[in-house]
Amino acid sequence: MKKPQHVIEFRVRYSETDQMRTYYNSRPLEWFERGRTELLRALGKPYRDVERLGVMLPVKEAHVEYLGRAEYDDLLKMTSTISMPGKARIRVDVQIEHAESGQPVCRGYTVHVVTDLSGKPIRPPEWLVESARADGAQPRE
Amino acid sequence: MKKPQHVIEFRVRYSETDQMRTYYNSRPLEWFERGRTELLRALGKPYRDVERLGVMLPVKEAHVEYLGRAEYDDLLKMTSTISMPGKARIRVDVQIEHAESGQPVCRGYTVHVVTDLSGKPIRPPEWLVESARADGAQPRE
Amino acid sequence: MKKPQHVIEFRVRYSETDQMRTYYNSRPLEWFERGRTELLRALGKPYRDVERLGVMLPVKEAHVEYLGRAEYDDLLKMTSTISMPGKARIRVDVQIEHAESGQPVCRGYTVHVVTDLSGKPIRPPEWLVESARADGAQPRE
Amino acid sequence: MKKPQHVIEFRVRYSETDQMRTYYNSRPLEWFERGRTELLRALGKPYRDVERLGVMLPVKEAHVEYLGRAEYDDLLKMTSTISMPGKARIRVDVQIEHAESGQPVCRGYTVHVVTDLSGKPIRPPEWLVESARADGAQPRE
Repeated sequence: MKKPQHVIEFRVRYSETDQMRTYYNSRPLEWFERGRTELLRALGKPYRDVERLGVMLPVKEAHVEYLGRAEYDDLLKMTSTISMPGKARIRVDVQIEHAESGQPVCRGYTVHVVTDLSGKPIRPPEWLVESARADGAQPRE
Repeated sequence: MKKPQHVIEFRVRYSETDQMRTYYNSRPLEWFERGRTELLRALGKPYRDVERLGVMLPVKEAHVEYLGRAEYDDLLKMTSTISMPGKARIRVDVQIEHAESGQPVCRGYTVHVVTDLSGKPIRPPEWLVESARADGAQPRE
Repeated sequence: MKKPQHVIEFRVRYSETDQMRTYYNSRPLEWFERGRTELLRALGKPYRDVERLGVMLPVKEAHVEYLGRAEYDDLLKMTSTISMPGKARIRVDVQIEHAESGQPVCRGYTVHVVTDLSGKPIRPPEWLVESARADGAQPRE
Repeated sequence: MKKPQHVIEFRVRYSETDQMRTYYNSRPLEWFERGRTELLRALGKPYRDVERLGVMLPVKEAHVEYLGRAEYDDLLKMTSTISMPGKARIRVDVQIEHAESGQPVCRGYTVHVVTDLSGKPIRPPEWLVESARADGAQPRE
């Protein structure tokens, strides 16, 4: 049974490196977003559709630990796991490593609140609660 | 009479470099935007106010020539010049060089159409036409 | 024989949008880089290996025409075509459209010189000349 | 005696916004870098010179709390404070608010190790220890 977790692979872009010849420190937050996007799609709820239904998940907090280098074109593997640490907050934990060697690149998390389009906090929709709490949510193929 | 040209100085951010130890090739377009922003402000028409009045200046075309390196923290000097190549288009030419040595970094331009908030082309407002066609003089402090 | 043209599909990231609700104008240059990266990989010469062999292809010129909107998560199709407009220059033409509707998003090109690691122009390696001139190369105006 | 704290003002770039019409969540880490750069310059040790002397301060950890919106061209005020939570680590706490209203935008910190150019941890140079511990250093929880 699948966990509310999702794995994608991607390559480091040249634009994401800096003169230290590794990824610049803000890139993981952009990668985390891709992970969330694909995680929600796998759960059957693409975020663009979620936003169109009037539900937003703005980031309230983000944390990154930098564990190792990653250069241009390196193939990375990112694992995103969703959970609900409280009644109104969503948390996505992310782990990124080199796809082949398993060498760690970084890990971190984002915490999100659930709001309407005007930014007012709302009760998380049922599908989100179920997804985040599921022991075995089935990601859609 | 106001001159349709504006000069600013800025430093290259670490995030703007890449593993070739110079600025990544998309950064000039972000710098050009800063130049336009400050040019319009100097003309007495901050772009944010322009947008609030229902006038947008989306980019239709952009061109960059890369002339030399610029590393992290290098102090650059950017000159932006506005003109109207036709009745409905605005063009901003930009030149970027090292502030001290005058060594060239890049040059290019953006071409903009004038639209309403829905993206429909509109007649350029009078202040814009006058600004872009001015023969020269002093930007406002 | 491989054609010097390559097609990839990708989705617009949230980080690539701006407050006009479409992609920010510098993003195409980052997308073009991804196109070149995959084009060279398809030609059997990943750019990272090329750089390791002491050959660099810095961008000398870039041009973008903005043809239509693309929002977060839109699936885009990018076609990159390599050619050699002269003895020492490489050009990559790029076309980006919505994957399903075929609606145009943008098009443009980058021009590259061939240099050694110190930035000194060198004669393009044979494989590059052959790739760029191979069957299927698009004659350009 | 200089205080290990530094304040700069800057404006939100259009490229830093996203379709939620506020700054994208990775931008604070780029802003934090600007804060560190100007903080070290104010301490008489521009980071580019530090790197040239063979000392690097790679980011090991970063944290951001998002407290409020900031739109294109908003004038923000960023306060960066340096400290040494241990013998080998540097921490920079950052606070960003709207320059005029004082409304909070975000806050966070980065933790850095001190390494040589090869990435090997080294003892922090004396000037850095003194700077981080100087009069005015904020005791942290």
